[in-house]
Amino acid sequence: MAAPFVIVGGDAAGMSAASKAKREDPDRDVIVFEKGKWVSYAACGMPYYVKGTVENLEDLVAVTPEAFREDRDVDLRTGHEVVAIDPGTETVTVETNDERFDQPYGDLLLATGARAIEPPFDGIDLEGVFTLRGMHEAKAIEAYISSRDPETAAIVGGGYVGIEMAEALINRDIHVSIFEMLPHVLQPFGNATARIIEDHLSEAGVELHLETAVEGFAGGDAVESVELGDGPAVPADLVIVGVGVEPTVELAVEAGIELGPTGAIATDEYGQTNVTDIYAAGDCAEDTNVVTGEPDHVPLALTANRAGRAIGSTVAGDPTPTGGTAGTAIVKAFEMGAARTGIIDLDRAREAGFDPIDVTIETPTRPHYYPGATDLTVTLVADRETERVLGGSVVGREGTKRIDTVATAVTTGVTVSELQNLDLAYAPPFSPVWDPILTASKVLAGKLDR
Amino acid sequence: MAAPFVIVGGDAAGMSAASKAKREDPDRDVIVFEKGKWVSYAACGMPYYVKGTVENLEDLVAVTPEAFREDRDVDLRTGHEVVAIDPGTETVTVETNDERFDQPYGDLLLATGARAIEPPFDGIDLEGVFTLRGMHEAKAIEAYISSRDPETAAIVGGGYVGIEMAEALINRDIHVSIFEMLPHVLQPFGNATARIIEDHLSEAGVELHLETAVEGFAGGDAVESVELGDGPAVPADLVIVGVGVEPTVELAVEAGIELGPTGAIATDEYGQTNVTDIYAAGDCAEDTNVVTGEPDHVPLALTANRAGRAIGSTVAGDPTPTGGTAGTAIVKAFEMGAARTGIIDLDRAREAGFDPIDVTIETPTRPHYYPGATDLTVTLVADRETERVLGGSVVGREGTKRIDTVATAVTTGVTVSELQNLDLAYAPPFSPVWDPILTASKVLAGKLDR
Repeated sequence: MAAPFVIVGGDAAGMSAASKAKREDPDRDVIVFEKGKWVSYAACGMPYYVKGTVENLEDLVAVTPEAFREDRDVDLRTGHEVVAIDPGTETVTVETNDERFDQPYGDLLLATGARAIEPPFDGIDLEGVFTLRGMHEAKAIEAYISSRDPETAAIVGGGYVGIEMAEALINRDIHVSIFEMLPHVLQPFGNATARIIEDHLSEAGVELHLETAVEGFAGGDAVESVELGDGPAVPADLVIVGVGVEPTVELAVEAGIELGPTGAIATDEYGQTNVTDIYAAGDCAEDTNVVTGEPDHVPLALTANRAGRAIGSTVAGDPTPTGGTAGTAIVKAFEMGAARTGIIDLDRAREAGFDPIDVTIETPTRPHYYPGATDLTVTLVADRETERVLGGSVVGREGTKRIDTVATAVTTGVTVSELQNLDLAYAPPFSPVWDPILTASKVLAGKLDR
Repeated sequence: MAAPFVIVGGDAAGMSAASKAKREDPDRDVIVFEKGKWVSYAACGMPYYVKGTVENLEDLVAVTPEAFREDRDVDLRTGHEVVAIDPGTETVTVETNDERFDQPYGDLLLATGARAIEPPFDGIDLEGVFTLRGMHEAKAIEAYISSRDPETAAIVGGGYVGIEMAEALINRDIHVSIFEMLPHVLQPFGNATARIIEDHLSEAGVELHLETAVEGFAGGDAVESVELGDGPAVPADLVIVGVGVEPTVELAVEAGIELGPTGAIATDEYGQTNVTDIYAAGDCAEDTNVVTGEPDHVPLALTANRAGRAIGSTVAGDPTPTGGTAGTAIVKAFEMGAARTGIIDLDRAREAGFDPIDVTIETPTRPHYYPGATDLTVTLVADRETERVLGGSVVGREGTKRIDTVATAVTTGVTVSELQNLDLAYAPPFSPVWDPILTASKVLAGKLDR
């Protein structure tokens, strides 16, 4: 009998691996150590809990601990922190409130996730200053709003979390300011998309401070203002710091597991680390970028779920690649959506060895005669030499899931003219004859011809 | 100076070719002969004119004749019918109301379209019995409804036109019965999708008569009822016959131009027929099916526009393939949409040399905790041996444009596991973590494994 499959971390990657391994190989023990209390929760749903769209935090839990234990026969232990790995003896050391013990493993999966980056801002420990990474933080923010009734909020960082939280807080009747160091919000989406979202955020009442460095936070008992390097302080009864995440890799590093160029745990195509029998998946691990073929770190839910599931199969005896990432993402900002995939940033494309060319077009989502059409702005990026599609973004009030067509295209390596020749669905209630993705590829093909 | 580029037929394929050729080679004369009065109109919009969504029939015209003539410098001649082609002298014979003349061509494009099939029903010439193919018919149906105020309508044929017209007529407060000879409506969409649309049609008040052969129509001055082979006559003050279209190929056949296996004009990858300098595009011509590599006849708007445009480029000196067809289609039926692509019918897949396997799943369009999710039913078909994705369909109240991901997949030839590994966009307002297309491919992959 093989030693147990031990998993460190009970969210997307960990629980997907546990479920899959147990389903494929029911006789083998699968033990999950989760240091917190929440498992298998939809972190992406947390802003909608704060917003009030999701009534109970518990609703974000996909599968309860009881269901994992009883229905799926997974030995799930919450409140258990793995504090050391000994690859030599294939053992992990586990701490709980009242004991410390060693657990042998046959295979080990590190699914330790990522944590919110907390820059060394003055006053970051003031009451009313939050990051949003785990369920306890979502609960704490909601409780703070309900009990303190803040009038003004500052969001530091114009990424997904910042924008989703802006919508959430405006919905709670709080005045919101976003502070972003870069020239634009949503940097990975490209400037054309970012500008449209910025206009929309402003229309929605969000006060945008771009190219603005935050120095810290001031207040007495609780936070009262944001201090800027340049200009007067801005009042804020609530602060959300959402400047990105960093992979949680200390446990891995101490055990001699190698990190990759992104700073996350390096893995092969099966999610295996440089140490035999140790895998890594989810927000703590690297994936292969399907466009560049290089390691990338895209801490998003689907990648984590898929890699976990694949490792579950592999460990159960059916070697399954974890699949690559195209860095596909979509975000709602009030009445609009923005989506991206592949490589959009021209400098990044050049670094990856491409000679990029891009185009941005604005086109209606339906024929002119059919009511309700709105404008969709599509950006496409291709390599001049091979004409391969490298990436793209889409922004508008509807139809932004069209990014999936571009994601499929960048993954399968199609050229601009192949993209242009795709037979996409048309009927007046759904699309113009030339779908916006096709129109963008026509324009890009024309630009390539010149 | 080359002899003119002459185009027969002024709708999607013809006008796309004219515009593109003139743009690429402005010095060359481009002459379009259109026997009717309407050019460049959106036939797919006609049901929405009858429904009342589109106020004026003229709104369906994408580019007016004046704009073609003045802005695009196309010599567009409406009311001109080409009655003969002489490939030997490279001349077409043209008839108008009051003259008949010969026009030399350097290149010739046949874009003669397709016409509604009119089965030999008794009483098909009764007043109140219509097909819906051209703008004059849309106008006549609308006028008939407005002047006669019919209470009951019969639609013969449960294809796109039948279903779109059912919605249109119900919206005009007319009781609608659909008569379909086959066991299901929307045959090309597969049975799983068809059943869901059938239930929805019934909920919307449509009376469905499946596996029901119509014998003819009876009435006095105007139609009053539908006569069935089996069972009592069904009252109908208005009848729409929508049993499909047939390519308009007589002119081509008389000139010695070959038809393909589908009965439409055979073309090579550049849209050229077997006769030098003669091209064919749009509803009268075949295309290559991207899944089977065989000739196919898919008389839809995008294919026509694209082939016309490509031929315009080719004629202007830039040889451009017309692109294949995946047979992608989408149709609105009241509050639902249904979409399809590739090969869904298992018998057709077998005929094409595949060993097909299919799966149908039902899955929500958003996570359980995010409001407004509805069920999407996805069917996927793959080849057992190569695991290549052959086709699929999607049906539900929202998100049916997801078919584009499948269309891209079938065109690029991906396998089920490659489809399953696509990095599609996820955020709670837009999709579950595993997009429904991914979920379907996971289930299909599991079925392939067994």
